[in-house]
Amino acid sequence: MSEPLRVALAGLGTVGGGVIRLLDANRELIARRAGREIEIVAVSARDRGKDRGVDLSRFAWVDDTTALAKQPGAEVVVELIGGSDGPALTLARSTLAAGRHFVTANKAMIAHHGLELAQAAEAAGVALKFEAAVAGGIPVIKGLREGAAANEIARVYGILNGTCNFILSKMESEGRDFAEVLAEAQALGFAESDPSFDIDGVDAAHKLSILAAVAFGTQPAFDDVAISGIRHLLGADIAEAAALGYRVRLLGLAEAGTDGLFQRVHPHLVPIDHPLANVTGSLNAVVAEGNFVGRLLFQGAGAGDGPTASAVVADLIDIARGEFGPPFAMPVASLSAAPKADSGERRGRAYLRFTVADRVGVLAEIAAAMRDAGVSIESLIQRGAISDGSVLVAIVTHESPERSIAQALEKLRGSQSLVGQPMWMHILD
Amino acid sequence: MSEPLRVALAGLGTVGGGVIRLLDANRELIARRAGREIEIVAVSARDRGKDRGVDLSRFAWVDDTTALAKQPGAEVVVELIGGSDGPALTLARSTLAAGRHFVTANKAMIAHHGLELAQAAEAAGVALKFEAAVAGGIPVIKGLREGAAANEIARVYGILNGTCNFILSKMESEGRDFAEVLAEAQALGFAESDPSFDIDGVDAAHKLSILAAVAFGTQPAFDDVAISGIRHLLGADIAEAAALGYRVRLLGLAEAGTDGLFQRVHPHLVPIDHPLANVTGSLNAVVAEGNFVGRLLFQGAGAGDGPTASAVVADLIDIARGEFGPPFAMPVASLSAAPKADSGERRGRAYLRFTVADRVGVLAEIAAAMRDAGVSIESLIQRGAISDGSVLVAIVTHESPERSIAQALEKLRGSQSLVGQPMWMHILD
Repeated sequence: MSEPLRVALAGLGTVGGGVIRLLDANRELIARRAGREIEIVAVSARDRGKDRGVDLSRFAWVDDTTALAKQPGAEVVVELIGGSDGPALTLARSTLAAGRHFVTANKAMIAHHGLELAQAAEAAGVALKFEAAVAGGIPVIKGLREGAAANEIARVYGILNGTCNFILSKMESEGRDFAEVLAEAQALGFAESDPSFDIDGVDAAHKLSILAAVAFGTQPAFDDVAISGIRHLLGADIAEAAALGYRVRLLGLAEAGTDGLFQRVHPHLVPIDHPLANVTGSLNAVVAEGNFVGRLLFQGAGAGDGPTASAVVADLIDIARGEFGPPFAMPVASLSAAPKADSGERRGRAYLRFTVADRVGVLAEIAAAMRDAGVSIESLIQRGAISDGSVLVAIVTHESPERSIAQALEKLRGSQSLVGQPMWMHILD
Repeated sequence: MSEPLRVALAGLGTVGGGVIRLLDANRELIARRAGREIEIVAVSARDRGKDRGVDLSRFAWVDDTTALAKQPGAEVVVELIGGSDGPALTLARSTLAAGRHFVTANKAMIAHHGLELAQAAEAAGVALKFEAAVAGGIPVIKGLREGAAANEIARVYGILNGTCNFILSKMESEGRDFAEVLAEAQALGFAESDPSFDIDGVDAAHKLSILAAVAFGTQPAFDDVAISGIRHLLGADIAEAAALGYRVRLLGLAEAGTDGLFQRVHPHLVPIDHPLANVTGSLNAVVAEGNFVGRLLFQGAGAGDGPTASAVVADLIDIARGEFGPPFAMPVASLSAAPKADSGERRGRAYLRFTVADRVGVLAEIAAAMRDAGVSIESLIQRGAISDGSVLVAIVTHESPERSIAQALEKLRGSQSLVGQPMWMHILD
């Protein structure tokens, strides 16, 4: 058997601890599969004294995390610090510049700096791998980069944020409102104390921009992702969706069209018989539609120390086997800079929910705005007083250009009849 | 860009035609992803004159299929002939002996001769790849070999035969019996004119034995798979299962235990909220349970020219990239020869259905047999006369050793009360 693959590990939070535990527990099996042992030789984290439940005394401790890039004997650096910039980025740059492999779970950094880092890795002839950055333990980067590599991908979409899916599932099964379920998720540790990256869709957008680059052979373009989260969803929206035969899911969706690449994170109505409608709790799932393979689905745990460590170590095994190639499935020079596609040109059915004052003429005003914008209504439900005495109007449109729906909502902006912002969800076809 | 990867293609049925069409349609994209073009240089099939809807004049035609192994200029042979032995096996042996890569969709050959061929590939330092042999377009070999490589797999199971799943879905949605739906599936081309390999579970067993080898690091052991098909299922079984909250699926399941490797293809009751319960029509899906990643699900089209071609070309792209390793995820010398685990030791809940004569004492006889074998009954339903005046008795047992259930059925063997064989299905936990 060859020499072990020697690893320097930066970051000893839950995932870092998971990687150490995994390499301990499955050491022999991994050596059989990888053809060589994988061995951590040095670690670094902010607080040396903290008890992490794993024996760190066998590893060299390095105070200055960024110095791991030049740790003697290490061929790979694993970065589990997080943050798009700061020490993580410094470490990535210096590791690749030193001609060593780099493995990370850092979606924000890859979304923002992936292209630069891929260039550096290519120049140095080393690996840059980030399976754990998207959908946790699910091997979806590999699934697109390799498994579906023969296909032109028409679109890729999925449930990319477990916190949001946990909250939506709970709202659905218990008929409760967003704020209440969020508070419970926070108490249980399923949501951060500052949950905005999750619930406002930014985390899912980071992941989507990485997926899209791999799927479409385009440069990662996080800034082109249109982002909405789930903060303004009502329990009533989920109930209306259910009555119509749908479940509400926060989807990241990227689609290649003639006018460019369309990327969006947005709550969607998913038909009850679609596999994503049955993805509940904190699971993640990704669908890729290829021109020969058809619809592929990958599903599993999108977060947590075990699943994320599984993806990190899968990347290490690829490196140990010498089976790695360009990070985004093709050389950086081959990645195209796709223009951002205009959402207004997109056609689809939509769910629109208005919370309105309970008085004469409100429904006429909404209906007129829809008519004037040329949006045809497939169904409309008005429900009597919700909590504060206002009334809920839920509309499903026929297929319309999104531009027309935006126009209808624009006409209603500032109307005295509306209580709060309308909710607009897309219906997945 | 490097030289093209030059391919000799044996077999021009639907999948062979699909590979040619795919390489034509996605040529440029594949070259960007693989770093080089993939080019067919020679083809061979039984009937040169047959119109296959693709232009073959640009390829060298080789009459003797097995001569493709030495086709000048070809680095890879793709085998799409089928059959566990005969020309496919001859071609595989001679290609690997000639030091060339070999890609196949031939599950029967890999199930029976995979170990020998892997040894030959290893000795020659070339690739032996068979993604298309299991679950068609779904990259599940890759998912296990690489994506889940960091995990000890506890069990792997799934829907591995699209014909059976199509029939079961139809029986379920239309409340019809097996023979009628099979005839319709044959008329539609979803089932072969001799469907026994599919409906009796042999095809699924071929695939399961390959999956198990990759998942557990064991030598493929097709002969150790216990096989039952769906031929004796009644529409009434599916209706009873539905009433109990289950759907019937033909599952291939392999599980590593202390006493060896357990492999079985058998109809199962799958809880309605399990992802496999929602896999309908001719789709395939595979679940792998890893000790760190948890439960991973891969789902997609398990057959058809497009999906199968997608998997074949994914293998070619791996070869073009130089990213291939041992066929069964580790060197042949590292594969263990796991003993066949004894099903009698397994514990689980079971569904037992008896078709019985409508007379006094039958129920007492069945109940006594169960009691004497120590099998405890969770629920029992007796339904009045089915078609031929006989009566249906469906039992769900509490968790019991399979040995006890077998004993109970043995006691009832030859009983004058029973009309035909009892149906025994396992309940997936």
